[in-house]
Amino acid sequence: MSRGPASLGTGRVTNEERIVQDFLRPLTRETPEALGLIDDCALLTAEPGQQLVLKTDAVVAGTHFFADDAATDIGFKALAVAVSDLVAKGATPRFWQMTLALPEPPHSDWLTGLCAGFAEVQELTGIRLIGGDLVRTSGPLLISVTAIGSVAEGRMLRRGGGRPGDLVYVSGSIGDAVLGLRLRGADPASAGWPLSAGQRQHLVRRYLRPEPRLQLVPALRRHATGAMDVSDGLVIDFQRLCRASGTGGVLQTAAMPLSAAARTVVTADLALLTILATGGDDYEVLFTVAPAAAAGLAHDAAQAGVAVTQIGALTAGPDIVVLDVGNQPLRIGPAGYEHFSR
Amino acid sequence: MSRGPASLGTGRVTNEERIVQDFLRPLTRETPEALGLIDDCALLTAEPGQQLVLKTDAVVAGTHFFADDAATDIGFKALAVAVSDLVAKGATPRFWQMTLALPEPPHSDWLTGLCAGFAEVQELTGIRLIGGDLVRTSGPLLISVTAIGSVAEGRMLRRGGGRPGDLVYVSGSIGDAVLGLRLRGADPASAGWPLSAGQRQHLVRRYLRPEPRLQLVPALRRHATGAMDVSDGLVIDFQRLCRASGTGGVLQTAAMPLSAAARTVVTADLALLTILATGGDDYEVLFTVAPAAAAGLAHDAAQAGVAVTQIGALTAGPDIVVLDVGNQPLRIGPAGYEHFSR
Repeated sequence: MSRGPASLGTGRVTNEERIVQDFLRPLTRETPEALGLIDDCALLTAEPGQQLVLKTDAVVAGTHFFADDAATDIGFKALAVAVSDLVAKGATPRFWQMTLALPEPPHSDWLTGLCAGFAEVQELTGIRLIGGDLVRTSGPLLISVTAIGSVAEGRMLRRGGGRPGDLVYVSGSIGDAVLGLRLRGADPASAGWPLSAGQRQHLVRRYLRPEPRLQLVPALRRHATGAMDVSDGLVIDFQRLCRASGTGGVLQTAAMPLSAAARTVVTADLALLTILATGGDDYEVLFTVAPAAAAGLAHDAAQAGVAVTQIGALTAGPDIVVLDVGNQPLRIGPAGYEHFSR
Repeated sequence: MSRGPASLGTGRVTNEERIVQDFLRPLTRETPEALGLIDDCALLTAEPGQQLVLKTDAVVAGTHFFADDAATDIGFKALAVAVSDLVAKGATPRFWQMTLALPEPPHSDWLTGLCAGFAEVQELTGIRLIGGDLVRTSGPLLISVTAIGSVAEGRMLRRGGGRPGDLVYVSGSIGDAVLGLRLRGADPASAGWPLSAGQRQHLVRRYLRPEPRLQLVPALRRHATGAMDVSDGLVIDFQRLCRASGTGGVLQTAAMPLSAAARTVVTADLALLTILATGGDDYEVLFTVAPAAAAGLAHDAAQAGVAVTQIGALTAGPDIVVLDVGNQPLRIGPAGYEHFSR
């Protein structure tokens, strides 16, 4: 039986078994598939007519988050970015396993925070922990998540399901996270951005806590022909969507949905628009819809309370074109985040 | 279409897409569930009457292997230790996803070797790659594997399925890996061990390349009441087996199956027996069998060509007793590998 947080103490937790039983096991409550985290493994029974969607996604301190981010934010982000992929496939988040690689025996408070972040995403999305591994590393904190969702047979949204003529949409707003990253990292240029304290906070929060667009899943299932999540940057992910679809495409950066805070920054410095289009970490859903379904999508997305914006279209051509605010082809350097090229 | 190894070049591979498409994608051949590694995720269809067993296991350079081990050995071990868990559950290995955290852009040759190690385990066990994530780390190489097996409904072997009176068996031999580790790490004491070159090679190989006991699965399914793999050390894993079963137990270290090489070392230095019993990295199957099933087990294991040895029994007890060669209770320090206590 797991003890409550009050008895967890405040020092470093050096006992692996204690980390598992006291901190992680509460995340498996009412989840028989986890087998109480005492059996090395999890056991899943598939529901008839359902398929499982699996996605492994890792975050590393210094690359995907700051080592001194609040533990709750680290936990939230590590799990949320994996769930984001399931949502973009039209899947219902169900279970997750984790490798937690720790640079040193963690403080009890830090572990409590980390697990609180996990718990928040569990509450928001319904996903439940069913096991994992705990290892020491001489390097930075790393959290690898394997997220598992379920979807009605044959209904998973593929990245390349769209056809020429389909409209390309994105959920929410683009570019907040890359601005938030610069604010969080105290980029000198960001000091001059004409933002209110609340706007700064909004942007940093968008970087720290990407929220999977779970509410959009029913509308995606009903109307989308293809979908993926935007993680490495809108432009490169748009290019990938087109290539997977075997189509060309046009992306209008002028149509990108911006938050009020991002709009304020871009208005002050138009050159930042390219950064927003390529910055990554958005974790919005990029998806394709046949023109005939556009009205239905708009209706269902509004019902779900999630903004969706048409930002382009798939074309027959081989060319994948990105247009700037003046509708001129945009010249872009690195088109998005690539782990090994920079 | 993926190109053959001949065209992979010899320099560092800085392009993430190229690592995925040229090196990893060949591991997904004839596996539609992988969706060609272009769709962010995998898609599984459960077979009627089957359940899925999931296990996440990570290895880190400097902890689970040496950073300068041959890339093929690193790949082999990373995947084999996860498959070992599936086998110990009586499951048939099916699919795996991976997080590969690399300290720097890898050399083409190194990647080829790593994937050759993965491919060997795939051939040996039938498991197939269905996706993963590739990240940069400023720390040591880390490979996290989520392995997925299938098992007939209700037939997964639990760790704690045994009852008082059940006999406790272990497959193969115990202690080779910890001796191999000392040889591989050039432990000064190991220089004096009276071993032939072939015996040294055998022990090092057992450390580098744990072989999942897949051939034992049918016998386990037929006769075992409970099972787990021995990864952290026989003594601590035996204690865990007893605790999960809610029983006491007796483990006779004198009965531990030793390879000829290990026997040679122990004969020269009896104190090493405790090291063998607690050293870890064995990746053998520890399992319980009702006395009435012992003859059937012996027959089926012999048919399968896997040695199995009775090393103890579960008792009504609460006491979990480990006996030395003279059948006196053994005094043991750390009972096995604990990541955070040493």
